[in-house]
Amino acid sequence: VINLNNGEQRWESYDQLVIATGALPIRPDVPGSDAAGIYALSNLESGIAVKEDVDRKKPQQAVIVGGGYIGIEMAEALVDRGMDVSVIEMAPEIMGTLDPDMAALLAKTVERHGVHLYREESFEKIETDNGAVRAVVTNKRTIPADIVIMAIGVRPDTELAREAEIPLGFKDAIIVNDRLQTKVANVWAAGDCVQSFHLVSRKPTYIALGTVANRQGRVIGANIGGDYAVFPGVMGTAICKIFDLEMGRTGLQEKEIRDLGLEFVSGTITSLTQAEYYPDAGKITVKLLAERKTGRLLGGQIVGERGSAKRIDTIAVALHAGVTVEEMINLDLSYAPPHSPVWDPVATAARKTASMI
Amino acid sequence: VINLNNGEQRWESYDQLVIATGALPIRPDVPGSDAAGIYALSNLESGIAVKEDVDRKKPQQAVIVGGGYIGIEMAEALVDRGMDVSVIEMAPEIMGTLDPDMAALLAKTVERHGVHLYREESFEKIETDNGAVRAVVTNKRTIPADIVIMAIGVRPDTELAREAEIPLGFKDAIIVNDRLQTKVANVWAAGDCVQSFHLVSRKPTYIALGTVANRQGRVIGANIGGDYAVFPGVMGTAICKIFDLEMGRTGLQEKEIRDLGLEFVSGTITSLTQAEYYPDAGKITVKLLAERKTGRLLGGQIVGERGSAKRIDTIAVALHAGVTVEEMINLDLSYAPPHSPVWDPVATAARKTASMI
Repeated sequence: VINLNNGEQRWESYDQLVIATGALPIRPDVPGSDAAGIYALSNLESGIAVKEDVDRKKPQQAVIVGGGYIGIEMAEALVDRGMDVSVIEMAPEIMGTLDPDMAALLAKTVERHGVHLYREESFEKIETDNGAVRAVVTNKRTIPADIVIMAIGVRPDTELAREAEIPLGFKDAIIVNDRLQTKVANVWAAGDCVQSFHLVSRKPTYIALGTVANRQGRVIGANIGGDYAVFPGVMGTAICKIFDLEMGRTGLQEKEIRDLGLEFVSGTITSLTQAEYYPDAGKITVKLLAERKTGRLLGGQIVGERGSAKRIDTIAVALHAGVTVEEMINLDLSYAPPHSPVWDPVATAARKTASMI
Repeated sequence: VINLNNGEQRWESYDQLVIATGALPIRPDVPGSDAAGIYALSNLESGIAVKEDVDRKKPQQAVIVGGGYIGIEMAEALVDRGMDVSVIEMAPEIMGTLDPDMAALLAKTVERHGVHLYREESFEKIETDNGAVRAVVTNKRTIPADIVIMAIGVRPDTELAREAEIPLGFKDAIIVNDRLQTKVANVWAAGDCVQSFHLVSRKPTYIALGTVANRQGRVIGANIGGDYAVFPGVMGTAICKIFDLEMGRTGLQEKEIRDLGLEFVSGTITSLTQAEYYPDAGKITVKLLAERKTGRLLGGQIVGERGSAKRIDTIAVALHAGVTVEEMINLDLSYAPPHSPVWDPVATAARKTASMI
């Protein structure tokens, strides 16, 4: 144990040890990557650091490397601060946890708010000026930058576990059982440093989300405290606000289903968040993915206006329960004009998808 | 068949007959009940009639008999029109599809908006003046009224079915099988005139809701058209906007569980609709009911601010799937600060309820 206030080191014995070292943002080691004005977001302090830099230096041009949740949320935040914002994304479409057809709906909104999206471009290096960032270079262009946000994802921070010879698995995340015990006696692990079991693919996965970390913390606390609790696994349920749109996703997306060698059908519908005659009724698009022949629900995605995102939970619970899309048609979902059309958009998507089985 | 335009009657043969006669509002036969200015709401026309009367006669004092969905929605609508509104409810609390502790949260809001709630009072008669309503008399008081809304519920309109000797069941609703066939060959029935199977109590029930009618219409259409579809049953999922609050309910409430002879525990928590630091975070109260010992989810109720009501669907799907409240704790529900606290309020309620098993 190192005392960070005075640098003192000492050994501390334990009866039960919990490893909760979290994740580290991936920072590619390219020329200029240690320049001032480059930020990565992984905790409260790193967020505060960006905010203080923006307040103090009033940068005008921001480049964000990576078009996932963090990258796009930061794009919105920096546009709100009046900056000229560019996002570089290696893949053909931003927001890679959605299928490209759904993510394209978000990309349109992001661009409509003035963000320059450079897709299918790879980040190559940073140009500097007196040790401070001046521009970001991709394989296709050079973009002037006063501030750069690195948002290309995280990796489990498992150096400590590796040194202690605690077995690591998928993406070097710590292997734990359902009670969140590592393979070493009396050592537990939870959060962004552990491997999870994917309840739909039934394979190990690595999904770094605060929801999972919180639930896992409870499970370890219960187990160490003498109760008995298990963490069954994850489905990658996530939601995000993107300017005037909201997105949600759960389960497997098309590329993951293909990687598993499964065949699927999908149904996408566009409906409204409220009864059509209601003043603020907004558009909502729902996509469901189901296994061919069996109709087993495999995943779902939502993009829509206010009131759309949390509807992903309906799909997440259906996925948890292993229902078919045919069964989902008659789920007793709620209706009142201020809150939903009489056919809930999720049920409408189930009808479309079931018709393709 | 009677032609309503010219009164002509004729016989029309059928290959398949669908009875969709709906429901009729219950209108107690008390003195004065045929006076002008008394309305009941059951279809679009009856709603338009009230609106026209309000526009034309500008009534100042409204009395609503019945404090359920329709009664309270009408109270809000008439308060919005600047009227002085009273609601008479026979039971100790309004909104009888919620447990009284949850309904009390709504009652407070209804009263704060100026509605006079007279609970535990029975409607006795109407006083008239030249054939028009003048006041409503309860067992405790006389309330001046320019307009009266009768909102004490509906009953299935099954006179036609009874005359045709089609067997009726619970509350004289038409008995149908899962394909929505009546007990008479080639005669089908759907909507507010049929008896439903309650998926939680596993007993016949009568729940007149537009959602159910819509889903049933699809099932009959598919079956008559040569496809095969079933309607498994209902759980009484319903939501409603009440001034600045929203409510949702699904499954069994306390009194229904007691009537079944089951024992239960319940957990009620108050949380927020968004992360606590988010500007518009509103209060949300979630109550779950679970079977004692087994922990099987039996029902759920929500009362809260904007963004609360549709969360009942999460509970409805869990109920459909037959999960325990213990299992609900780890459901992979979504989180992002603009949409939810990191522990979804439904999961928090599951924790509370599971701890009481």
